[in-house]
Order: sequence, then structure tokens, then C-alpha cells
Amino acid sequence: MIRALDLNADLGEGFGAYSLGDDAGLMRIVTSANVACGFHAGDPVVMRRTLRLARDNGVRVGAHPSFPDLQGFGRRPMRMAPAEVEAMVCYQIGALLGLARAEGMTVDHVKPHGALGNMAAADPDLAEAVAGAVRAVDPDLVLLSPAASALSAAGRRHGLRVGEEIFADRAYGDDGQLLPRALDGAMIHDPDASLAQVLRFLEAGGLVTRGGAHIPTAIHSVCVHGDTPRSLAIAGAVRDGLERHGLRVAALREVVAG
Amino acid sequence: MIRALDLNADLGEGFGAYSLGDDAGLMRIVTSANVACGFHAGDPVVMRRTLRLARDNGVRVGAHPSFPDLQGFGRRPMRMAPAEVEAMVCYQIGALLGLARAEGMTVDHVKPHGALGNMAAADPDLAEAVAGAVRAVDPDLVLLSPAASALSAAGRRHGLRVGEEIFADRAYGDDGQLLPRALDGAMIHDPDASLAQVLRFLEAGGLVTRGGAHIPTAIHSVCVHGDTPRSLAIAGAVRDGLERHGLRVAALREVVAG
Amino acid sequence: MIRALDLNADLGEGFGAYSLGDDAGLMRIVTSANVACGFHAGDPVVMRRTLRLARDNGVRVGAHPSFPDLQGFGRRPMRMAPAEVEAMVCYQIGALLGLARAEGMTVDHVKPHGALGNMAAADPDLAEAVAGAVRAVDPDLVLLSPAASALSAAGRRHGLRVGEEIFADRAYGDDGQLLPRALDGAMIHDPDASLAQVLRFLEAGGLVTRGGAHIPTAIHSVCVHGDTPRSLAIAGAVRDGLERHGLRVAALREVVAG
Amino acid sequence: MIRALDLNADLGEGFGAYSLGDDAGLMRIVTSANVACGFHAGDPVVMRRTLRLARDNGVRVGAHPSFPDLQGFGRRPMRMAPAEVEAMVCYQIGALLGLARAEGMTVDHVKPHGALGNMAAADPDLAEAVAGAVRAVDPDLVLLSPAASALSAAGRRHGLRVGEEIFADRAYGDDGQLLPRALDGAMIHDPDASLAQVLRFLEAGGLVTRGGAHIPTAIHSVCVHGDTPRSLAIAGAVRDGLERHGLRVAALREVVAG
Repeated sequence: MIRALDLNADLGEGFGAYSLGDDAGLMRIVTSANVACGFHAGDPVVMRRTLRLARDNGVRVGAHPSFPDLQGFGRRPMRMAPAEVEAMVCYQIGALLGLARAEGMTVDHVKPHGALGNMAAADPDLAEAVAGAVRAVDPDLVLLSPAASALSAAGRRHGLRVGEEIFADRAYGDDGQLLPRALDGAMIHDPDASLAQVLRFLEAGGLVTRGGAHIPTAIHSVCVHGDTPRSLAIAGAVRDGLERHGLRVAALREVVAG
Repeated sequence: MIRALDLNADLGEGFGAYSLGDDAGLMRIVTSANVACGFHAGDPVVMRRTLRLARDNGVRVGAHPSFPDLQGFGRRPMRMAPAEVEAMVCYQIGALLGLARAEGMTVDHVKPHGALGNMAAADPDLAEAVAGAVRAVDPDLVLLSPAASALSAAGRRHGLRVGEEIFADRAYGDDGQLLPRALDGAMIHDPDASLAQVLRFLEAGGLVTRGGAHIPTAIHSVCVHGDTPRSLAIAGAVRDGLERHGLRVAALREVVAG
Repeated sequence: MIRALDLNADLGEGFGAYSLGDDAGLMRIVTSANVACGFHAGDPVVMRRTLRLARDNGVRVGAHPSFPDLQGFGRRPMRMAPAEVEAMVCYQIGALLGLARAEGMTVDHVKPHGALGNMAAADPDLAEAVAGAVRAVDPDLVLLSPAASALSAAGRRHGLRVGEEIFADRAYGDDGQLLPRALDGAMIHDPDASLAQVLRFLEAGGLVTRGGAHIPTAIHSVCVHGDTPRSLAIAGAVRDGLERHGLRVAALREVVAG
Repeated sequence: MIRALDLNADLGEGFGAYSLGDDAGLMRIVTSANVACGFHAGDPVVMRRTLRLARDNGVRVGAHPSFPDLQGFGRRPMRMAPAEVEAMVCYQIGALLGLARAEGMTVDHVKPHGALGNMAAADPDLAEAVAGAVRAVDPDLVLLSPAASALSAAGRRHGLRVGEEIFADRAYGDDGQLLPRALDGAMIHDPDASLAQVLRFLEAGGLVTRGGAHIPTAIHSVCVHGDTPRSLAIAGAVRDGLERHGLRVAALREVVAG
């Protein structure tokens, strides 16, 4: 029986003069912040500001490494050799570690971003590279990974604690992957429907796909978004609903510790 | 009396398909390697390769942070707010730390590169930002700094151990700064003359400028270059000559420990 | 007697997933758009979209080249050799030309952005490099330049038509340069006061500085901003006010043609 | 009967402090230079220098646009929307046009680089985007394309003159694509064998694959490399051999004009 759940969000995704998303709003809702590390978003100043904001809100932080693609916001698939990916992920985790140390903070977890995350969820070689990088930098880091994915498996092979993550506002295909955004019904816009999906997954002990299939998996964290006022409302509704249903919302590190 | 000296060089300054300098040659001569961190040169793959090469040669490593200027190789002055510089230096030190951890190595020191180093040597606000970043990330890091500079002073104010660095192959002006490369006599091309300058500085207990002035300073490290076969010969001659004169060539960390 | 004035704004300053400013709003007010060329903002997709928006609104376009500094939005001074600046400006003008051709549009003018513009306004060597680049790419391009600046002078030396530009919402120092934003009174926030400044300059036949000095200059264009709803209101007020006072608001190319 | 052939090479692939390849050597051999446009290599200063070197050697120039991937030298496949590719190619062609104008030179052709070229050779949507960009910027530009590829077909559909290109030093698979470098026999290292392959293709009126298949195609240009002394020797041997066999080596523009 799952008793506690983490709520995570991608934060610190501004860059230089640019801002993106409602970091201040989400920081009041989530328990874990995935902090962009400069490759798809975030620069050293933005990263530092995001760390401070997390600390002020009692939110735990993790690294959110990406392909090197600021223009594409890390969403464009790139084919890189696994050794390149591994070094690139070490670099980005380290960069956040450097700033976290400067703030007297610790980094709890790592969650690969965008195309890197999607590809590592499906491609065992990439998954191996990402999980290997995390373990190499610090085996105590939690790997926050799409539930029931190749990346979760690679994390466990490396002896990492793995946080299995589900989405409240996205429908799943029968392969256990998110339906592409372009598809009808791929996005769940209603706060109640989002909460219902999370509760359904928790009850089922796994993903329930659009086609009705069950994919069993532990569930440790729910990813929420803050791009729009509406998504912020969803995030709040999910948090409130979970607590109303007797679940404790707690930081990833606690949840994976059982 | 100085008994031991570090020899340092800027290494890992390739990027992607590009290489620069004779890293393998210099690694056999120096005791400390300043590893480019991706802002003026170096990418995650190059950084990792450089760390391994250092380890294989028993060379200690430090971070070599720079302004974000790959095209200008970090040699073009930029005006950045001190808080930006501080965050940027934390980021780069951290990035190297991430890769060093993945290799089971430790990072001993930090030496700012190019225009950032030159500006921090003269501008107390920038010096403060750089030294503050180093201390914030890890107060045990040694700050490798131009001898008798504003940066050295800032490092000491922050309680850091400071490695005072001289150049074997560059003449000094009466302000204690390197003569601009364009000036006649600014570059010392002869291995014997380079060695002689180092010995003269050691004997004088400080910098001896072109105009004959003495600027007293501790001396912990000599910077050597490897851009050309000739500079590699200078580096080797300096090392051999120092040892012939009874000086021990040792890693910076040992030298500053006295 | 000035009968016609151009209104220009910096547009297309988004990048990838990021947007900035109210391009759609400003396009309805201005007669010339300075289009970011990818170095401080803008990417090929954003540039193309901006060109189309300009065409749809009957707004003429110019290139808005910058130092290569996306993180600093081109506002951080960099020291580059004049030959580097010249090549960099040619590159950026050309990039916009490529996209403009693809849209069947022509590029009317060039206005250097941010730190590059400020530095070229004061430094004759940089001014020479910028003006030389414009003439080299196309001597028919208009150089849009801070009024009474070193850049205007360099443009005339190169035989370029120069559009002398004033700001409606910024106070001028006695050296003819904009007061730094940090100074009290540097920013003019009131639409009526902004319009009044433009009219005062037109009547005076030059800049009227904060200290009361007159710096005679032709005036061809007024720069307006759209960062905030308020600045958009200023822009609209200036346009309406000018027309009410019998001035024709017309594209830069027409205005400099007399 | 083919009477004339162009020899092309990828040039200007340095960046900032980095150089790559023997541009000066190749410029004495080839008739067309594909000039890197800053996305995989090349910066405005390098581009300008390359243009001047081409002019001094009587070599015609073309744009060599790439995915935005300096670290991966444009060799890493990226998935970009066709509209992004189209804008990106317009941008890069334009950037070279800007510098070429500044040198009083014209740009003759466009050849996509690395992964962009390989993907556009096989993927009709990408081919369409690249060919569409070339035509949109200037329908008089020649599209230099892998012989018998999807890109050549797209170029013809757009009414462009297409230069069909073969490689002297690479073996072809039965699908008409280059064998991957990793495969045994993929690289032809012998100058005589390289020349023999070119002559064999010319005689056959098309590609002759490793498996012995014939793929009919016009042949207008041979791509040669200059990465190593050996490849420079190959380039020279091919040129000499072609002339010895009575073929005229001429610029692409002349060759495609028939």
C-alpha cells in the first residue's frame, strides 16, 4: 500500500532575460523541484535563484539534465553516443552540485529532461548511460524516472534508488509511454480528471493505459506542470485531493526510502 | 626559503572535433592541470578524457573557469555583474567536480582563465566574486592566482589557501601585471632565459619587473604552456632546471601546505 | 523643418520556447522593426515569424545585430577586435537577408543592439567597424543610429544614409548619451512626458539634455518599447501625439530620403 | 557523355582559436568550396577568411549549412520540424551571403552538412525543407546533393539546378548511400583506387555499389577531403587523374550548366 507520494515539477526553466512558468506558484505546491542545468534552460544565475526559492519553500531539489539544445528546449531528439550522454549528465549534475554547495544545500535526485528522458525511457543503451552517470557522480542520488521504463530498470541494475514517476495530466498508451501531445485525448485538462487518474493508478498498483491495459509499477512521484494558470490549478487540485484521500505528500527521498 | 614549486598548465582545451595544445606532452611535465570547464573550451567528453589523462600521469587537477566565450577562447573581456560571475564560477567548478567524482578523483584547485583571470587580478570586485565562489563551493580548494594580485588578496580575505603563480615565459610590467603580448620583449622564447626568470624571482622573493622593480610575493607555482613544440621545450627545461637547482617540483596542494 | 518621423522598435526578441515583449501590439504602432538576428535573441524560426508579422502590418524591417551573448541579452559589454565586430555584423545582416528573401521582403536598415550599439555610439573604432560592415553588405541600407553619436558620424563617412534616432522614454546626459537606467529620472514613465520630450527635441532641432544643454542633430526616428503594457501605452501616445501635431509617421527609408 | 566535373571540399571548418583541415592545400586542388556557416563550425571571422582564400585561389563558394551542433560537428542526427530546418537553412545561407557581399563575391551553391545532409538524402520531408529553403533564398543557387538521393529529387521538384555528387574515397551500399565509416572497406585509402572509383562511376553513368548494383545518375561533382596528408594526396591524385583522362575540372556552376 502506498502511503506517501512526492509531487515534482520542472523548475528554473528561464534563461537570461527570459522567464518561463510560474516557479513561485509551483514551489508552494510541490515537494521536489527538478532544476534545469543550463543545457535546455537555466543559466548559473537562474539556477542559483531557483535553489534559493526551493529552500525558502522547503522544497527538495534535483538535477534536470538535458541534451544541449537551448533553442529546442531539449525537446528535439538527438543521437549521441552513450559515452557522450554519460559525460554530459555528469557535467550537469555537477554544475547543480556546485551551486547547491554554494547555497549550503544538497541535491537529492536526478531526472532527465525532455527528449533525453523520453529516449532513455525506451532505449536501454541511453538508459544505461544516464543511470551510470548518476551512480558515478553519487550513488546516493535518487533517479526520478518514468514509471515502468527502461530507465527505471537501468537505475535498479546500478543499485540506485529509483523514484517511479507518473503524470497526472497525460494519458498513457498501451506501451506504457505517454501518448504524443498531438493525439486527441493525450492531455488531461480537468483538475478532477487529473486527480482521478492518479488515484486510479495508485489503486491499480500501476499504469492504466488508454486501451485499458494495466502495467504494474511502484509509484513514488507525480509530475505536475505550471506553464499555465490552469496547470497550476491542476497541480493544486492533485495535491489537495491526495491529502484528502489520506496520502501523505512528502519529498521523493523520503518516499523512496519507504 | 622556497623548497618546493608546482608546475601548472592549462589543459583540456579542445572542444568536440577540435584539439588544441599537446596535452599528452605537458602531462608528463607538470604537477597540476587546469582543466577547461566548457565555457572557453572543453566539453564534457574532453573534460573526462583530460581527467583520465591527468590521473594516468599522476597530475593533480583544478577547475579553469572562464567567461562564456567559446569563439573568443575566453580571452575577450566581458563586463558581467559580480553576482553573475560568482554563479558562473560555481557552475563551472561544480561541472568539473561532477566529472571528477565519476572518475573517483578530487579537484584540488581553481584558476580563472584568460580575460576572467586577468580582470580578477586587477579588479577587486571581480576578485571578490571569484574568490567568494571558490570558497562557497569548497573552502578546501586552493585558489591559483597571479602572484601579488587583487585576486590573491581576495582569496586570503576569504580564508582560502592561495597559490601564487608566476610565468616563466612572460615579462612583467612595473604594475606587476604581464606585459601585453604585443609589446616587444613581452614573450620569453628561450628555455634558458625562462628558467633564469624563475630562478631570479625565487631568489628575489618576488616579481622582478622589466623596469627592475621588485614586488615581493610568495611563489608557489609556475605556469607553463604547450601550444608549440618550443613551449613544450621551455616547460621541460624549467622543470629540469628547477630540480637541478635543488627545488622539489610538487603538486600545488603540497606546496601551499608548506 | 521636420515633417516626417519614423517610429522604431526592437522586435523578434524571443528565442525557442521563450517569448519577450508584445510584438503584435507594437507592430500596430511602429513603422520600422529592428529584428533580432540570433546573437542576443531571435532564432531562425522566430526571425521568420517576425518578418511575416511585420509584412502583415506594413512595417519595414531592419537587422538588429548584437554581440554574441544570449544569456546577457546582448547588454554586457564585450571587447572584440573591430575586424571581429565587422564580420559579426555582416553575418547577422546576411542571416536576416536570407530569411527576408525567403519571404520576398527587403531589409531597409541596420541598428546595432544593446552593448554593441552603446559602445559603437561612443567608440570611433567600433563605430567604424559597424558602419563599414553595413556599407560592405549593402550601401543602400540605412544605418539607424543614436542621434549625434560617433556611429552616426561613421555612417556618414561611409556614405551611408543615417537615421538619427531619439528615445521618447529616456533622459539624456550632457554628453548626449542616455542616462544610465539606474539613475533617478533616467526613465520617463508618463506617456505625456514622453511625447513632450519628442516634441521638445524636434522644436529644438536636437537633443535637450537633462542639464539643459542643446546638442543639435537631425532627428529621423523615435525608438519606442513594448516590454510592459505601460510602455506600449507610451508608444501609442507618442504616435498619436505626433500625428496630432501634424507630423507624418512614416518608414525610416522615406524619412531619411527627405 | 560527361566532359567536365567539379571537385568540391568542405572548408572553413575552424572555429575561434581552433583550426581543422588543410584549407590552403585543398584550395589549390578543388573548384568549389563548401563554407561552414557557424552552426557546426565556422564563425564570422573564419568564414570571411575562407571566402578570401577561395577568391585568391579562384575557387567558387557555396554555403554548407548544418544542424546547430558545434560540439558534435553537425554529425549527430537531430529531429527538427521541417519548418525549423527550412528557416535554419535560410539563415545560414544568408549569413554567408552577407559576408560574401562584403567581399564582393557571389555564392554559387548550397550543400547541407553532415547529419543534415545524410538525413535529407534519405528523408523526403527534410529534403523538401532543405530544397525549399535554397529556392526561397535564391532560385539561382545550385543544390549540391548526394547523387541519386531524395535531396536531388526534391531539388529538381523545386526547379533548382542540382549538382549530383559522388565520393572518391567512400564505398556505396546497394541502397545508394555511403557505407557507414565503421564498416570494413567503407573507406578507400588508396589514391589510385579512389580515382578508379570515380572513373568507374563515370563510365557506368551512375553509382556502382559494393554489391555490384548500378544506380544510374548524372554526376557533376566529386567530394574530396583534406583532413590528413593522405586525403590531400587522394584529392590531388583524383584531380590529376581526371585531367589525364581528358575530363575538364571546372566549377560546379559551369558543370551543371552543361
